[in-house]
Amino acid sequence: MKNEPENVDTAQKPHILVCNDDGIEGEGIHVLAAAMKKIGRVTVVAPAEPHSGMSHAMTLGVPLRIKKFMKNNRFFGYTVSGTPVDCIKVALSHILPSKPDLIVSGINYGSNTATNTLYSGTIGAALEGAIQGITSLAFSLTTYEHADFTYAGKFARKLAKKVLLEGLPPDTILSVNIPNVPESGITGIVITEQGRSRWEEDAIERNDMFGNPYYWLNGTLRLLDESLRKDEFAIRQNYVTVTPLSCDLTNHPFIGTLEQWNLQK
Amino acid sequence: MKNEPENVDTAQKPHILVCNDDGIEGEGIHVLAAAMKKIGRVTVVAPAEPHSGMSHAMTLGVPLRIKKFMKNNRFFGYTVSGTPVDCIKVALSHILPSKPDLIVSGINYGSNTATNTLYSGTIGAALEGAIQGITSLAFSLTTYEHADFTYAGKFARKLAKKVLLEGLPPDTILSVNIPNVPESGITGIVITEQGRSRWEEDAIERNDMFGNPYYWLNGTLRLLDESLRKDEFAIRQNYVTVTPLSCDLTNHPFIGTLEQWNLQK
Repeated sequence: MKNEPENVDTAQKPHILVCNDDGIEGEGIHVLAAAMKKIGRVTVVAPAEPHSGMSHAMTLGVPLRIKKFMKNNRFFGYTVSGTPVDCIKVALSHILPSKPDLIVSGINYGSNTATNTLYSGTIGAALEGAIQGITSLAFSLTTYEHADFTYAGKFARKLAKKVLLEGLPPDTILSVNIPNVPESGITGIVITEQGRSRWEEDAIERNDMFGNPYYWLNGTLRLLDESLRKDEFAIRQNYVTVTPLSCDLTNHPFIGTLEQWNLQK
Repeated sequence: MKNEPENVDTAQKPHILVCNDDGIEGEGIHVLAAAMKKIGRVTVVAPAEPHSGMSHAMTLGVPLRIKKFMKNNRFFGYTVSGTPVDCIKVALSHILPSKPDLIVSGINYGSNTATNTLYSGTIGAALEGAIQGITSLAFSLTTYEHADFTYAGKFARKLAKKVLLEGLPPDTILSVNIPNVPESGITGIVITEQGRSRWEEDAIERNDMFGNPYYWLNGTLRLLDESLRKDEFAIRQNYVTVTPLSCDLTNHPFIGTLEQWNLQK
């Protein structure tokens, strides 16, 4: 299925791969693809079904299917019967003729800040792009309903242009969170760190028709730091947050202490 | 289902929650539980089915089931019909009477080094423990077959004792990889950083009985650095590697550069 990308405007324009975790029918990916088409050639490869909360999961031991997805009787993109990370892997190995210049993931429903960074399939797809050596961005809008993607699409286009010019360090993506307000309501744009937070679980326990219990995961996000330098706190003040994230999880400052534990003995 | 943990030896001993991603029938979790029972009270909560490659995925929108799992006609632990991260969440909210003193995850089949750190459900479970403020460790043995867990269980016990004494920084776990050799073949124990690597995809394309293509993800791990300070390289020299990993993915050194991009304009 190694095809030339469709929706080709001009061969000179950068080639941009668009993915998400809400699935190809999510509104955000259509806004993001439209924004990217103004600055480049776009190929959309997205999960066939919603895959929120899938993090960096990949599909092992189950075959994947690729299908063409039509929108208003025109080809829009490819669906993959797997996770966001699967989409990036399959796009690079079987759909795109060569490495794209940029991967953009989103626009996700619901913010990917603080602890949610680790659960996010939107961020998983972008990190997979970075692992493959491709400049990658993740975009989220901080709402699950009444979403207005207008400003988010505009900012995504602006940042993508800047990143194509400046590049990013190895193994690093930018995770962008955008408040769900009109442009006039945006307080500003801040560069942030991943905040600290914790879901305080309150899994709901119910009984089925046979009297057997089942559990729905549920909870309240408790913020553990309050500073405009932290993504979740800043976005609550209606700032756009831009957080650089790395694929390297090493806690480097702790290595010296660990070496003094003398585990050899 | 909020029960007192079973397998209680002495109330004074630390309470240790044991999880994995290979599922409750994986050999590694039985070795790990046995090792932990020598130093503490143990509760096992593990996925009912194998969940390799599930990273930090959690189950949204599907109810979870908890069941008791018997081994040789004795209660061994609880299964959860979800991911490793789900197991930690459900254990803390519905199974354990109070927070455990330690979470150990594994012993996983196959090393969780370099890029595989991001795909690993074993590490996902341990990171979820760290998010919840609990000291957490992940253990892997570098093989998928002819596994000899003898030394791995011994080292897990030694490290768990040390960590219960010393503690870990917030939001930090230790990811331990153990070569699949007898103790006499171990070169040493090194504190390492997460290495850089990339799966070079070679997804297999086949046709089904209807002539439609399907894809199996497949690939070769390409190592991008060669240093004994890096986990994957060190373990190939038969070192035990101990890598401190953080839940904070922020690329802190890049923040200054990003601020100079003047995205406000």
